[in-house]
Amino acid sequence: MKQYREVALIGTGMIGGSLALALREAGVAARFVGYDAEPGVAERARARGILDAVAADPGAAAATADLILLAVPVRATLAVCEALAPVLAQRSDVLVSDAGSTKVDVLAAVERTLPWPERFVGAHPIAGTERSGPEAANAALFSGKRCLLTPTARTRPDSLAACRALWEAAGAIVSELEATAHDQALAYVSHLPHAAAFALAAAVGHEPAAVGLSGGGFVDTTRIAASDPAMWRDVFLANAGPILGALELLDQELGSLRRAIALGDGAAIERWIARAREGRRRVLAGPAR
Amino acid sequence: MKQYREVALIGTGMIGGSLALALREAGVAARFVGYDAEPGVAERARARGILDAVAADPGAAAATADLILLAVPVRATLAVCEALAPVLAQRSDVLVSDAGSTKVDVLAAVERTLPWPERFVGAHPIAGTERSGPEAANAALFSGKRCLLTPTARTRPDSLAACRALWEAAGAIVSELEATAHDQALAYVSHLPHAAAFALAAAVGHEPAAVGLSGGGFVDTTRIAASDPAMWRDVFLANAGPILGALELLDQELGSLRRAIALGDGAAIERWIARAREGRRRVLAGPAR
Repeated sequence: MKQYREVALIGTGMIGGSLALALREAGVAARFVGYDAEPGVAERARARGILDAVAADPGAAAATADLILLAVPVRATLAVCEALAPVLAQRSDVLVSDAGSTKVDVLAAVERTLPWPERFVGAHPIAGTERSGPEAANAALFSGKRCLLTPTARTRPDSLAACRALWEAAGAIVSELEATAHDQALAYVSHLPHAAAFALAAAVGHEPAAVGLSGGGFVDTTRIAASDPAMWRDVFLANAGPILGALELLDQELGSLRRAIALGDGAAIERWIARAREGRRRVLAGPAR
Repeated sequence: MKQYREVALIGTGMIGGSLALALREAGVAARFVGYDAEPGVAERARARGILDAVAADPGAAAATADLILLAVPVRATLAVCEALAPVLAQRSDVLVSDAGSTKVDVLAAVERTLPWPERFVGAHPIAGTERSGPEAANAALFSGKRCLLTPTARTRPDSLAACRALWEAAGAIVSELEATAHDQALAYVSHLPHAAAFALAAAVGHEPAAVGLSGGGFVDTTRIAASDPAMWRDVFLANAGPILGALELLDQELGSLRRAIALGDGAAIERWIARAREGRRRVLAGPAR
């Protein structure tokens, strides 16, 4: 596959760091220059062997790169692209991609700012961990995991093919989805579970008697409640409409349970649980995309 | 420790089967006679080596036992104890215990029915799996896991000591808690996570686009949504008051998120997430009991 001369990594945390390590290991590129808005994070990524050099701003990181990867909280995409635009105006030999959990807002930011949005390919690896920062980066993070690309009508076929090859080199199973469909599906399959896990952790945290008595159920249901606040703040803001719709459905389901419990209606509770189990089976058993 | 001549196992599913296997392995008893209300389940437990004999009803299972273990959905406790009472009326050389997820209702059923409730010790192992049935039984299920005993003011000290020794022989770390405090704490740390996982699985199951796109977050947050419907129906009914209180708090937390998202208030969302993470840390970091 295509080798890159120099990769600019904008955002050098767990996801960006993992992607850089995977691409380095696959021999896709040998030199990685990074920038992170949070002080000290890029230096920690260099110390971990993720970066060869640290840049002072996104433009400097991208100055001589032929591959630019954004791994920032999604609402930072606009400012990063604004910073990149002057550097990219003189050149078109560059592929730009990202790893954000939402896609409609990211593509809108790209369309508004980049001189050639047709060379940008939105990507979302469905992989991660509740840990954050370059210390949590892991070259095998994307191995065997799904990565969704969200090309638009104007995306260049060669850019799309190059981006697909990139994520395949990182070990991912790549498929394509339209950005609006992506954001709707992910509101349910990823954003709602995070909202529920955060809310559950907060609710249980109110009860002093709960301290020290948790078992595997609480640990597993709230594992992702340890996720990065800035990243998830941005996802909730960027995909507000679909997420509010999903939260409304969750509210209805919890309301059904509360009513059945209040009425002491065991048959209704059992039907409700059976429906939940069936929903889970359906979501998990679906065909690969 | 004390050896038992014969154990009656009432309820031969995953929990009861695991306890029998653990006690057999520890040499606590060599003969297990079982009864299960669901047709065929006790026979499957015998096929798995959990039981030596299958009885036609709880009274027959307990006829010559010196240890009776109940591992039934908690709302079945009353009927089981009613069936056991005539058999136990003539004898007092028997220890009776259970493994139910709620304790106030179980103790009330015991007080109403058994000829000598002071020889009953309520127990709740905080261990389990989302799988059910004797095929999911596992001798190591309780190893290193917490088991809470809920003695009352009238519980005999020798019965309590014998029950503690029993669960320790099964590998559990035993501590004591008053039944009301138990039910309040478990409403948060176990029953609410199950309610949230069921509701989440049901809500995501409504969205056709979600099929086949789930990642580790959905899998983990809904793992316990695969749990046994009859068992959880009974828990929700038996511990209705504390669970409705916990559901109210969960509803408030989800409402806070919905309002912040609807207002586009990123700072409020970030504070909310940080509070959730802190709640989780507090619950998990608590001292052992």
